[in-house]
Amino acid sequence: MISRENPIGVFDSGIGGLTVVRQLMNILPSENIVYFGDTARVPYGNKSAEVIREYAVQDARFLLSKGVKVIVIACNTASALAMDVVRSHSTVPTIGVIEPTADAAMGKVRSRGVGVIGTLSTINSSAYETALKDINSQTPILSQACPLFVPLAEEGMFNHPVTDLVAREYLSRFSGRIDVMILGCTHYPLLRDAISGILGGDVDLVDAGEATARSVLDLLSSGNMLNKQKTKPRYEFYVSDFPQKFNEIAERFLGRKLEFVRKVQIYSNGDIR
Amino acid sequence: MISRENPIGVFDSGIGGLTVVRQLMNILPSENIVYFGDTARVPYGNKSAEVIREYAVQDARFLLSKGVKVIVIACNTASALAMDVVRSHSTVPTIGVIEPTADAAMGKVRSRGVGVIGTLSTINSSAYETALKDINSQTPILSQACPLFVPLAEEGMFNHPVTDLVAREYLSRFSGRIDVMILGCTHYPLLRDAISGILGGDVDLVDAGEATARSVLDLLSSGNMLNKQKTKPRYEFYVSDFPQKFNEIAERFLGRKLEFVRKVQIYSNGDIR
Repeated sequence: MISRENPIGVFDSGIGGLTVVRQLMNILPSENIVYFGDTARVPYGNKSAEVIREYAVQDARFLLSKGVKVIVIACNTASALAMDVVRSHSTVPTIGVIEPTADAAMGKVRSRGVGVIGTLSTINSSAYETALKDINSQTPILSQACPLFVPLAEEGMFNHPVTDLVAREYLSRFSGRIDVMILGCTHYPLLRDAISGILGGDVDLVDAGEATARSVLDLLSSGNMLNKQKTKPRYEFYVSDFPQKFNEIAERFLGRKLEFVRKVQIYSNGDIR
Repeated sequence: MISRENPIGVFDSGIGGLTVVRQLMNILPSENIVYFGDTARVPYGNKSAEVIREYAVQDARFLLSKGVKVIVIACNTASALAMDVVRSHSTVPTIGVIEPTADAAMGKVRSRGVGVIGTLSTINSSAYETALKDINSQTPILSQACPLFVPLAEEGMFNHPVTDLVAREYLSRFSGRIDVMILGCTHYPLLRDAISGILGGDVDLVDAGEATARSVLDLLSSGNMLNKQKTKPRYEFYVSDFPQKFNEIAERFLGRKLEFVRKVQIYSNGDIR
């Protein structure tokens, strides 16, 4: 039996989903959260649809075993390729990052188009394009896969000549053509300076964090599932590899000590140890 | 019962191990080969020792199920971190790339030192350093992790200003200090031009392919396990994701049509489907 006190479940291919967690903590400060980061199989963005769907269902099953009341797919690649299959395996509502982020981006369009950058799998799926066209079929959309951005972000090369050169390579074609750029991968906000440096200050950068957290708020609120308890919320973080490294990065990024970080093993048949 | 006609087994985290396969085909043209590339979990170089060891044992088990007479760990990261555990699970001889490559490199030293470049996990393991010191404890060794080289190679950016800039960043410190550079990751031979461009023409670049294939020849020959049959050898390639993409790259790289490329699913409990 799922009650209001049950946690929100969030999964990602690794650490990127923390951008969504941070916004959930801000916007829904009473909610308990269970996070799973699949650091033993990161990245998802260079895998096939078939493998991404398999992994996403396993990740969702793990969250369900923790009694979550909603599943948030914080990973753009998994949201783009596995929403339907996660929904069909889930006994609770499932939210991805694509629709909320597309909505937020479309709201910022003035006279030009919307840009989308993401992993190869996300861009090839056209998921953002479809979501954007569903909102407004007239607005021009320009997409670009940026496969080197994830390794650059993971290397911490946020402000580095190499990152600037790579950003120029990927982003020059957007020049003068867009009002808004969707950062369609949870790693990309870390490269905000380099991206903004090429696009110019008049292009709004939209990431999944805030929009997705707001849509979780709407869902829980409309379903009368908000946690009303005033006790301190419980945050549990699970990863499939590198719990110490995850802990360090997460504490820095979330600006708080984490009391519960644990390594779990995800078996391909759905078992967890 | 393992006979001389049984295949040589080779595994790698992805496509990189083909550099070893190409040399095996050259040096041991009568041998049957079974290859496994773990493309659903690539890369290994950014995973923990614990996870790399788990994956390597599963990969080896798969090869053993195909009746291989020897296991070749073509992946530098897995060789550096999982030789002992693969050996202890294997019923046939196991060869990694570290010792043969270190041997070949030490043979080319003139008056200066040996450089080693590889993934973060390979360099942190000090496996090459240990192997080189075992051969000659006097020769200076200089190591450097080059985590961006794998994504650059996978993006096909072999001759690109970004690759040159990254190579300069990683390799400038080797200037004037080494006679030989070990390309301690199977992807790096693809970036040979950029690496050579920074190091200069008087530094020998040594990769795992030829040295490892020669050590397989020695092992089979000394154990009287060379295949004496004159029939056309059988080559079987298995991958855990992207069989079409693998097939394309492999055919181009090996310069021949592949008759057998199949996707398999590796279960974490060791089962294969």
